[in-house]
Amino acid sequence: MNEGNFRLRELAERVGAKIQGDGDANIIGVAKLESAGPDQLAFCASDRFRSALEATRAGAVIVKEEHAGVCPASALIVNDPYYAYAEIANLLHPRVRAEPGVHPSAVIADDAMLAEGVSVGPAAVIGEGARLGKNSEVGSGVYIGAGAVIGDDCWLAPGVYIGHNCTVGSRVMLHAGVVIGSDGFGFAPGPEGWRKVPQLGAVVLGDDVDIGANSTIDRGAIEDTIIGNGVKLDNLIQIAHNVTIGINTVMAGCTVVAGSTSIGKNCVIGGQSAITGHIDICDGVTVMGMTGVTNSIREAGVYASPIPAHPAKSWRRNVVRFMQLDDMAKRLKNLEQKLTGK
Amino acid sequence: MNEGNFRLRELAERVGAKIQGDGDANIIGVAKLESAGPDQLAFCASDRFRSALEATRAGAVIVKEEHAGVCPASALIVNDPYYAYAEIANLLHPRVRAEPGVHPSAVIADDAMLAEGVSVGPAAVIGEGARLGKNSEVGSGVYIGAGAVIGDDCWLAPGVYIGHNCTVGSRVMLHAGVVIGSDGFGFAPGPEGWRKVPQLGAVVLGDDVDIGANSTIDRGAIEDTIIGNGVKLDNLIQIAHNVTIGINTVMAGCTVVAGSTSIGKNCVIGGQSAITGHIDICDGVTVMGMTGVTNSIREAGVYASPIPAHPAKSWRRNVVRFMQLDDMAKRLKNLEQKLTGK
Amino acid sequence: MNEGNFRLRELAERVGAKIQGDGDANIIGVAKLESAGPDQLAFCASDRFRSALEATRAGAVIVKEEHAGVCPASALIVNDPYYAYAEIANLLHPRVRAEPGVHPSAVIADDAMLAEGVSVGPAAVIGEGARLGKNSEVGSGVYIGAGAVIGDDCWLAPGVYIGHNCTVGSRVMLHAGVVIGSDGFGFAPGPEGWRKVPQLGAVVLGDDVDIGANSTIDRGAIEDTIIGNGVKLDNLIQIAHNVTIGINTVMAGCTVVAGSTSIGKNCVIGGQSAITGHIDICDGVTVMGMTGVTNSIREAGVYASPIPAHPAKSWRRNVVRFMQLDDMAKRLKNLEQKLTGK
Repeated sequence: MNEGNFRLRELAERVGAKIQGDGDANIIGVAKLESAGPDQLAFCASDRFRSALEATRAGAVIVKEEHAGVCPASALIVNDPYYAYAEIANLLHPRVRAEPGVHPSAVIADDAMLAEGVSVGPAAVIGEGARLGKNSEVGSGVYIGAGAVIGDDCWLAPGVYIGHNCTVGSRVMLHAGVVIGSDGFGFAPGPEGWRKVPQLGAVVLGDDVDIGANSTIDRGAIEDTIIGNGVKLDNLIQIAHNVTIGINTVMAGCTVVAGSTSIGKNCVIGGQSAITGHIDICDGVTVMGMTGVTNSIREAGVYASPIPAHPAKSWRRNVVRFMQLDDMAKRLKNLEQKLTGK
Repeated sequence: MNEGNFRLRELAERVGAKIQGDGDANIIGVAKLESAGPDQLAFCASDRFRSALEATRAGAVIVKEEHAGVCPASALIVNDPYYAYAEIANLLHPRVRAEPGVHPSAVIADDAMLAEGVSVGPAAVIGEGARLGKNSEVGSGVYIGAGAVIGDDCWLAPGVYIGHNCTVGSRVMLHAGVVIGSDGFGFAPGPEGWRKVPQLGAVVLGDDVDIGANSTIDRGAIEDTIIGNGVKLDNLIQIAHNVTIGINTVMAGCTVVAGSTSIGKNCVIGGQSAITGHIDICDGVTVMGMTGVTNSIREAGVYASPIPAHPAKSWRRNVVRFMQLDDMAKRLKNLEQKLTGK
Repeated sequence: MNEGNFRLRELAERVGAKIQGDGDANIIGVAKLESAGPDQLAFCASDRFRSALEATRAGAVIVKEEHAGVCPASALIVNDPYYAYAEIANLLHPRVRAEPGVHPSAVIADDAMLAEGVSVGPAAVIGEGARLGKNSEVGSGVYIGAGAVIGDDCWLAPGVYIGHNCTVGSRVMLHAGVVIGSDGFGFAPGPEGWRKVPQLGAVVLGDDVDIGANSTIDRGAIEDTIIGNGVKLDNLIQIAHNVTIGINTVMAGCTVVAGSTSIGKNCVIGGQSAITGHIDICDGVTVMGMTGVTNSIREAGVYASPIPAHPAKSWRRNVVRFMQLDDMAKRLKNLEQKLTGK
């Protein structure tokens, strides 16, 4: 771990916290309530952790007002301890950045443009006319296609692939193995099988986008696939061609979004969900994990569909009944009519 | 975009279209009905796009006979506009091919055989005895194991992995991060945990296969995993060992096929489906997205199982009832017997 | 195939088998009952293969006592033919190991420590302070971050990524494209969107772990993500931050485990399952494929939840009824009360 070194007072200022206790305490890192030592900072975001808070040996703890009284250590009192923790953890443990410069084994087109502070790792390939903004880091083995544009302060982990003409905003993090701008899945059925439909659009990623390891985002068929500012995608997610995702929407791992679907702003999509193609999901929708979204959603709210695991013996019986459900419904109706005469 | 330049007449000839309007019109690219300009070609495949067709400013539009009357531009009249579009888009926007030749940083075994026109990108590795057919392109960082055989006119995107002894047909496209010939998931339970079962088969891909980014196809345990001619797989698909897939079957993203299952010809498998191991699916089966196929399917047709998303409040109630479904069915039967005496 | 050459007698000794027939028979490889020739060994693990056994032309077959009588070839008689097969197949077809040594195009930090017998492939990158144990093999294009520790006799396939400070045990196999130690999916919601929470933990993989192609395991948020000894994960699996998996648990392809969940020892998790975050699954749990585990499981046994595929026409009707299930249950209750007066 790469540790900073701050007085508690300095940290309080950064996050607008009220201090309780020793503002001069030296803090060199973060840790959990249970394992933090006297020069470490922990946080307590909910009552669930109250007993851990009471027993902590941390040097200081970020707490809500309501927990300040039971905090045995110095405290930073804020409204949202988790958010303040995120801020402070970034200060105390800044990401290790690669030294600017181009590794001699990287292969960079003559007319590619690399701004000040860019670093390019071993065996990376940067195509014709590609442009990289200030201080962006390109890991080993990354491929950036011709005409692609990467903003400032991006981090492209080793093995990332960016297809030709794709655009990446600033402060974007693409984790290992991410594929941006692979061909969309477009084939026209014909007499002798499927004919490939060339995928002529690109992918446009906004600013502050984060995409998890081995996720894939396909280029558009004619126009572009568009990922809005602040979107966060987890690992192993598949975004098909011509999808658009609105700003600040987050999506957990192994979810798939089929082609031409539009997802609004500030949505939260649970893991291993499947969202069908050519539908619209409005702003502010939460989809629980393992949910199949098969129709447009036009009202903000929480939506779900998973069947929860239960013991296989009863599951087997219930599943058989599921297959008979329409029949059951008709029989129920029948009985009601007999009894009520309606 | 890499644009061609054709007279409308030439395009009509290529796809056997009847021309309405100006056969001398110059066409340099394709675009959507809504955004096409006077030197671009659009297409209208269904009545859904009729109003866009009526308002288009495209130089020409590929239409069915029934829409020719309302097309405000020159028209190419065909039976299947989408298929004709695919043909023409490939003409107007041919894939940019890498220059033949081997990058000096590629590592190629002495006895590997590269046919005429092959290109090999930076840091690619080609193992002993591997063979590449005419005009095939190997992207940067690709790994081709010993004894692998790749046909003609293939495109292996950056980061593709081909295990030893695997065989790839001609005109195959493998998108970024595809893994062909990883070990199948075979372990024998024993007294001290799981014992790895060596995976001694390979993967055989037919001609005209297309495999999407980060998909994985495992090698067979003893014999081979076999993917037929013309099969198209989307991104993040997992094909387990000893699966066979018949010709022209297509599969959407995030689907998994478990070991030793056989899928027929001309099947269409929706996204995020799961097909269990050791079953047979006959020719001409369509499986909707998010469907769990747990038994063999012996009759062509459409199969499904997903529960669609609904508001979480009612979902919670329905799911509780699902867990009681067998009990409900018995109670229903009970009532019927009381009422009818049967 | 890389073949060994053994007398049947030697193989019998290795696996503690009783010989029936010619102990001097020469065996050079394994094959299926149906295709084995006179110098190959097959196995018959169940009655399902009895007719193939009776017709085999194999030189020898590994069988249970109960099948020895119908085996037309020499036989190795054991209690568990599949386990004995795994042992013998490893002997006859040992993995081809790379020659020790470092490829000149690999980029290795000055203070990285490589033990005896290590091989490092082209364009691999090994960061500062990383350590590799005896005879471990690092494929082409692999990235090993600063401070990572890899044990003895590991195999890291081409394109594997190991994040900084992650620890890998001995005899670990990581297949192509595996990502170990990508950032966990941690973001704190704030007034201007999501704030990244730095992921400060690492990943710890035990000994004898096997991880399938393109699977991803995220580093912990503060403490580590932990994968126990002998765990086997299939392809395209996502393990989120701070998950712990107990020894000898196996998991089939495309499964996702959300953050901070703990899975016990000797569990078997079916493919494309989804296990929610912050729950505990006890030892000895089997989860069938495509199951959603939404609550802790405290008792060993088999759990399930998938709805099996059925013809779309009846599926559509049943699904509509599912949405009305709570209503149906209430109506059923109503009828019961009318009929019984309760």
